[in-house]
Amino acid sequence: MTDRSTATVDQGSNGVPEDPWTPFRDQLLAEGLLVPTGVDGLYGRSGTYESVADAMDRLVLRVGADQAASSVRFPPVMPWATFERNGYLESFPDQMGSVHTFRGDERDHAELLRRTEAGEDRGTLLETTDMVLCPAVCHPLYPTMGGVLPDGGRRVEVYGYCFRHEPSTDPFRMQAFRQHDYVYLGTPDGARHHRDLWLERGLEVLSGLGLEVASVVANDPFFGRPGRMLAANQRNEELKYEIVTPVYATQRQTAISSSNCHLDHFGSPFGIETPDGEVAHTSCFGFGVDRITLALLHRHGPDPDGWPAGVRTQLWP
Amino acid sequence: MTDRSTATVDQGSNGVPEDPWTPFRDQLLAEGLLVPTGVDGLYGRSGTYESVADAMDRLVLRVGADQAASSVRFPPVMPWATFERNGYLESFPDQMGSVHTFRGDERDHAELLRRTEAGEDRGTLLETTDMVLCPAVCHPLYPTMGGVLPDGGRRVEVYGYCFRHEPSTDPFRMQAFRQHDYVYLGTPDGARHHRDLWLERGLEVLSGLGLEVASVVANDPFFGRPGRMLAANQRNEELKYEIVTPVYATQRQTAISSSNCHLDHFGSPFGIETPDGEVAHTSCFGFGVDRITLALLHRHGPDPDGWPAGVRTQLWP
Repeated sequence: MTDRSTATVDQGSNGVPEDPWTPFRDQLLAEGLLVPTGVDGLYGRSGTYESVADAMDRLVLRVGADQAASSVRFPPVMPWATFERNGYLESFPDQMGSVHTFRGDERDHAELLRRTEAGEDRGTLLETTDMVLCPAVCHPLYPTMGGVLPDGGRRVEVYGYCFRHEPSTDPFRMQAFRQHDYVYLGTPDGARHHRDLWLERGLEVLSGLGLEVASVVANDPFFGRPGRMLAANQRNEELKYEIVTPVYATQRQTAISSSNCHLDHFGSPFGIETPDGEVAHTSCFGFGVDRITLALLHRHGPDPDGWPAGVRTQLWP
Repeated sequence: MTDRSTATVDQGSNGVPEDPWTPFRDQLLAEGLLVPTGVDGLYGRSGTYESVADAMDRLVLRVGADQAASSVRFPPVMPWATFERNGYLESFPDQMGSVHTFRGDERDHAELLRRTEAGEDRGTLLETTDMVLCPAVCHPLYPTMGGVLPDGGRRVEVYGYCFRHEPSTDPFRMQAFRQHDYVYLGTPDGARHHRDLWLERGLEVLSGLGLEVASVVANDPFFGRPGRMLAANQRNEELKYEIVTPVYATQRQTAISSSNCHLDHFGSPFGIETPDGEVAHTSCFGFGVDRITLALLHRHGPDPDGWPAGVRTQLWP
């Protein structure tokens, strides 16, 4: 889920150019909905913020109740091997959160303390582990799905934390955020159908919450020159759609959900097959729970008790 | 929350020494409660497993409803600065999950891909960020609490993911796990009282779930030779208690909750003060939600529908 719109730069009241999100961010911090940690894109969230995120999570489950989907939850870190094999290392290296640790002795430890005290680089004293922060909530699922799928494919719902290294003061661009996905694994037609079904449902659910939404063809921010071709291809084949909503005084379009047709991108490396022996296709629809929470706070104000009755009934039936 | 008991090594049926947790782990995997990821201590969890963890989370909230605690949730990564300033880097460097990323160009990227393909070390091509995986759920809280506390101190409940780099096949020793804490910030007496109160409540809640529990003085696994002194001191001053329960055929004692008196360990570096200008003391009690879930599955069997009515009523009132 990404938003490639160009930020408009306004003049703040003190004459210094102001990011378009500054007033909204200031409000979130003043109301205590977000708690700053000192790292851009990393926040504590208040009980009120979380009550909206939790309500959204439960709404997603109600909306998907007819899907006979199995449920699985993964921790926020996943195997590096998955990251390497599913092509993420190749396409989005700059967004990674690789997990490193310390395996030295007391002498190395003393040097580590000295370097951090002196503000010197500690990187070379730390070693890689076999883990990486999970970049998309459905990624840990595919390696566990190897083998032959049942007739009609499989549907799985997954909820959890994702990490993308893209520090920003824009509250919509958190580095650690939550995504609630409905994943399909099966035939090419099934994958397209799943994507279309959920894109429609997503628009319905989100407009039912009083958000002005539209679906637009999109692309992921692939790395480097070869990435530009991959991005163009993704757009041409309409493999990725985002549901966007206008935020800030600039009406900047921000993605709050997205759908992806992966073709055989995951089926192939992880040996997922249809009953007739073809490589499985997969697709997923992801509700961006933190971005939706922020969009609701932006649209309806910082106090959910005062939100329109129709919106409250959807979230807290 | 740590368990320093020595594992007893049994002979498995095939004559190969078997870890005491192997039969339980095999059962969890066979029932699909845990889904292996290929990395020790990192699992997907089924809907059934999560229904117990969620019920435990809600039970903890009901038990603490009289505490007038505020709520905050932090993401699974926190600022490196917090990690450095709160002494964790000094005391537990070997458990860290430091977050590194890629900031190179296309040429570096090609080399990164070549090295991973060849199985060579990628570490030197990645750079440190200002983040680390959160080692204890209450750690991100303290830097946000700087300033003067109200009379009577503050109580905060925090729930979320922790990470400790200690790969193990013992399901009770996950690398990424969830902890639900009640934290107190205020006077030294208040901190002791909070600890005592919650240790008692914890024992009551957990024995009410049919678990055989006891509280024992404990210590954290401090690093290196100086660490041995710190650990001895922590025990002598009875700063840490764990609630333990016997698991496996060996009746091995495993910690499923813990309480800590931090003295001024967090108050001092983060400038937290009592109204009379003293450095605040803090204490916390943490329910180890994943370990409790596992202990319940171990004690009552893999199907929560079949658990004793009294246990079910506590979890799903």
